[in-house]
Amino acid sequence: MNFSKIAIIGPGLIGGSIALALRSRSPRTEVAVWGRREEAVREIAGQVSLASTCFEQVVKGADLVVLCTPIDCMPQIAQDLLAWVAPATLVTDVGSVKTSVVQALAPILRGHARFLGSHPMAGSEQTGFEAARADLFQGSVCIITPDADSSPSDIAAVTGFWQSLGCQVRSLSPQKHDQTVAFISHLPHMLAATLVDLVTSQDPEAFAFCGPGFRDSTRIASGSPAMWTDIFWANRTALAQSAQAMIEKLQQIAKMIDHPDQMHEFLKTAKAQRDQIRL
Amino acid sequence: MNFSKIAIIGPGLIGGSIALALRSRSPRTEVAVWGRREEAVREIAGQVSLASTCFEQVVKGADLVVLCTPIDCMPQIAQDLLAWVAPATLVTDVGSVKTSVVQALAPILRGHARFLGSHPMAGSEQTGFEAARADLFQGSVCIITPDADSSPSDIAAVTGFWQSLGCQVRSLSPQKHDQTVAFISHLPHMLAATLVDLVTSQDPEAFAFCGPGFRDSTRIASGSPAMWTDIFWANRTALAQSAQAMIEKLQQIAKMIDHPDQMHEFLKTAKAQRDQIRL
Repeated sequence: MNFSKIAIIGPGLIGGSIALALRSRSPRTEVAVWGRREEAVREIAGQVSLASTCFEQVVKGADLVVLCTPIDCMPQIAQDLLAWVAPATLVTDVGSVKTSVVQALAPILRGHARFLGSHPMAGSEQTGFEAARADLFQGSVCIITPDADSSPSDIAAVTGFWQSLGCQVRSLSPQKHDQTVAFISHLPHMLAATLVDLVTSQDPEAFAFCGPGFRDSTRIASGSPAMWTDIFWANRTALAQSAQAMIEKLQQIAKMIDHPDQMHEFLKTAKAQRDQIRL
Repeated sequence: MNFSKIAIIGPGLIGGSIALALRSRSPRTEVAVWGRREEAVREIAGQVSLASTCFEQVVKGADLVVLCTPIDCMPQIAQDLLAWVAPATLVTDVGSVKTSVVQALAPILRGHARFLGSHPMAGSEQTGFEAARADLFQGSVCIITPDADSSPSDIAAVTGFWQSLGCQVRSLSPQKHDQTVAFISHLPHMLAATLVDLVTSQDPEAFAFCGPGFRDSTRIASGSPAMWTDIFWANRTALAQSAQAMIEKLQQIAKMIDHPDQMHEFLKTAKAQRDQIRL
């Protein structure tokens, strides 16, 4: 990882955790954080080289810019970057959807800076710098989404950045990324919220009886509604397909309730599949 | 909690955790554990007053017997108890389904011992004594299911037992218990297994990209297939109703994918509901 100044745009859970991880793992790198609100900037100041609401101060001279804002703010941020970046500046983002982000950002930045999308599969249901942790990325997967414009040196540089934070880096096309995360992230979020809503509508007092299984399987339903609305909308085609596939699969499995032998086989297979996940 | 000898039938995750919790919290109580297999008994021996494959040794003289076996073994165990229990002996169980367990056990034990069902909402996807923990019940809910036969003193005694292990005790009828856990435990298990199976069928390589959200929302799919097949079968009517309600709710929510304002409202409500759960 050979960046001398890294600019982080957005001091929330992800941006804040990147800043804390850099401070602990790459103490000689200059880390500058931009926040829209004075109050958010004050929270992180003292933990980084520079925290400011002044875009120029944060971005000027950075050789890596990491966009950590909600995805719907990113095109405007990319426009604002143009005044301060150089053709050698590398820009990446942490958006949970990649096709629309890459399609929006790449044309804005083309010729002005080098852009390559990223999506660290880390986070929690919490938001804001108060939830940030230096070890958030340790052992997590970061998906990078190179396209035809991405040079091997850009790919190597962004890979090295995420590895320096403790990530395992894997590569997918933006389209394949979006299909994959529809099934492993966006649909699970929708299911958790739906299950919570179902229990509430059936019997709001049922929450008083919950055990750790319900707690863990619905934890993500406490995530930011605004952020997840944006994500669902940006990935609506793949999410709708995954939701339809889930409904059909669930109809099929529900029929096994009256056939315990089939249910046993199904649960054995699902356990064997789930046991393969090492996280 | 005023039991002088407690017999635990089945040294698995739950039975083993009860034994460890009693040793640590009620060191003067005699704790005897029965296991079917020599090997399982050897694992727990040394941690309790007595661990044995001899039913008589374990049960004789106990003033509380806790059945911690799979639910389909419980009627036979109740039969085996008859030779050793006294009318004052209190018997409870930890089965995840209550209507069928109470219907099966109460008539066997009536006149021979006092029976009152329990269901501690604690556990994990793991099984066996090696996963047992003295603090498994700390802060968890235990549902007891008294019926018309249950005396206030039995209710108080079983309540005191679970409280002594760190549980908050709540009471439901066996039927209401089964409807409630269909929604908060059995359906979530089916959903987790279905989601794992869906991802595997769509793209088995997707597991390589998973983050903590997928990990937590599918953890329970690693539970024992045999145990969960028995639970699903014993609670099949309520589970089928909850699965049907989930399918309908999911169809309704999937339509909101194209209506971000509605989706935002839905996610806000679900978050507010989920945030109420303090576990």
